Amino acid sequence: MNGTLYGIGLGPGDPELMTLKAARLIASAAVVAYPKLANADSFARRIAADHIPATAKEIEIEVPMSTLREPAQAAYDVGALAIAAELSSGRDVVCLCEGDPFFYGSFMYLFARLSDDFEVEVVPGVTSISACAARAGMPLAARNERLTVLPGPLPEEELRARIEAAESVAIMKVGRHLPKIRSVISALELTDQAVYISHASLPNETVCPLADAPEDAPYFSMIILTKGADPWL
Amino acid sequence: MNGTLYGIGLGPGDPELMTLKAARLIASAAVVAYPKLANADSFARRIAADHIPATAKEIEIEVPMSTLREPAQAAYDVGALAIAAELSSGRDVVCLCEGDPFFYGSFMYLFARLSDDFEVEVVPGVTSISACAARAGMPLAARNERLTVLPGPLPEEELRARIEAAESVAIMKVGRHLPKIRSVISALELTDQAVYISHASLPNETVCPLADAPEDAPYFSMIILTKGADPWL
Repeated sequence: MNGTLYGIGLGPGDPELMTLKAARLIASAAVVAYPKLANADSFARRIAADHIPATAKEIEIEVPMSTLREPAQAAYDVGALAIAAELSSGRDVVCLCEGDPFFYGSFMYLFARLSDDFEVEVVPGVTSISACAARAGMPLAARNERLTVLPGPLPEEELRARIEAAESVAIMKVGRHLPKIRSVISALELTDQAVYISHASLPNETVCPLADAPEDAPYFSMIILTKGADPWL
Repeated sequence: MNGTLYGIGLGPGDPELMTLKAARLIASAAVVAYPKLANADSFARRIAADHIPATAKEIEIEVPMSTLREPAQAAYDVGALAIAAELSSGRDVVCLCEGDPFFYGSFMYLFARLSDDFEVEVVPGVTSISACAARAGMPLAARNERLTVLPGPLPEEELRARIEAAESVAIMKVGRHLPKIRSVISALELTDQAVYISHASLPNETVCPLADAPEDAPYFSMIILTKGADPWL
C-alpha cells in the first residue's frame, strides 16, 4: 500500500505559529521533504527543526535562485521522483512548507505532480498576510469588505488599476519592487494608509509606515493598505 | 500595571489547527473571553475547550442574531467594559477568535475599543480560506497570480464585476446568498471551475462541485473559484 504525502503549512516563521497538527505529523515522520535554495539553509526546515525526529530521512529539494520557470520546475521534477519512491515503498512523506501550502507555496508544484497517483493531505498554515496584519495592528477585512492580494512583481499599470479598484490590499513579495509599488501608492495618495512589514513574527521583524520602509526590502516583505476610515466601531 | 489583551486566532474549527502559541496562551489563561450567539454555545469556546483551565474566569460576549449593526456593537461595548475591568486589575485576558482575528473576525471590534488604552497582542490563526483550499485540493495563488476575497452578501452586480476582473476568487459567508452567487458564476460560465465547501476541517464538512451544493448552505460556507488552466506544472 502506498504512503500518504502530507503538505504541511508551517506558518510565517515563528515556530510557535505552526499548528498542533503540523507539529504532531512532523514529530512522527519517517521521511521529511523540504525545498531549499542553493547555497542557503532551508527556511522551512529551520521553522520545523525542533520537531523533526533525528531518525527521519530527509529529502532536500534544491531550488535554483532564478526567476526563470524551467530550472525551478526541473528541481520539482527531481524532488517529486524522490518523494514518489518513498510513497511507493509504503512510507508517508511529510513535506515542510513555509506559510500555507496553497497560498503562493511551492508545494503546489509537488501536488500537481503527485496527487493523481498518491493520497495527498494538505494541512493549512497561518499565512504571512495574517501574520503581517497581526503585527501591524491592521484588521484586513470586516463585514462586507473585500480583500485583494497582489504580488509585487505585477506591472505598474496593473498594480495601479487593481489598488484603485480595491478596498483592503495586501501586496506580497515586495522586495526589489518596492520603488515601483511606493510610487503607485503615492500617486493614488494612499501612502498614509499603508504599512510595510518584513519577516513578520521573526526576531528580525520590521513594521513601519510605508514612508519609512528601507530601500533594500527583502523578498519576504509585504505592504498592507486599508482604505476604510475606522469602520470597526 | 495593566494586563495584556491577547486576540487568539483558533483556526477554522478542527482544534488541531490552532497554533502552538494559541494552545500555550489559552492553557495559561486566568481570564478567557469569547463571543457567543444568543441561545447557542460558543463556536470559539468549543474549538479551544480542551485547553481552557478549569480555574479560568470566563467572559461571554453575547452577540444578538441580527444583521443590524447597532445591537451587535452594543454587545461589544459591554464586552469591552468587562475586559477592560480585568486588564485594569492587572490580569491578562485571552480572547478566543474563530479563524484569524483580523480576517472577518469580530475581535477587531474589541481591538478598536481597547487598543488605545491597553497592550493588545494579536496571534494570527489559520483562515477558513486556507482550510477550504486545502480540503478542496485547490491551490489559491501561485507566482504572480492575484487572489480576490469577496463576501457573499455583496450586491449581484458588484459580485459579477469583481469575479469577472479576478483570477482566483474566494467567496466567504455564502449562506442564503448561494442562489445569487450561483447565478452570477453560471452567467460567467465559470461553474465548472468552482468548488463549494462548508464546515472545512470539521466532522460535518462538505466539499463538492458548486453545481452539487446543497440549497440550504450554512453561513460558514465558501466558494473557491480559479480560472487558471493547471498553471502549476
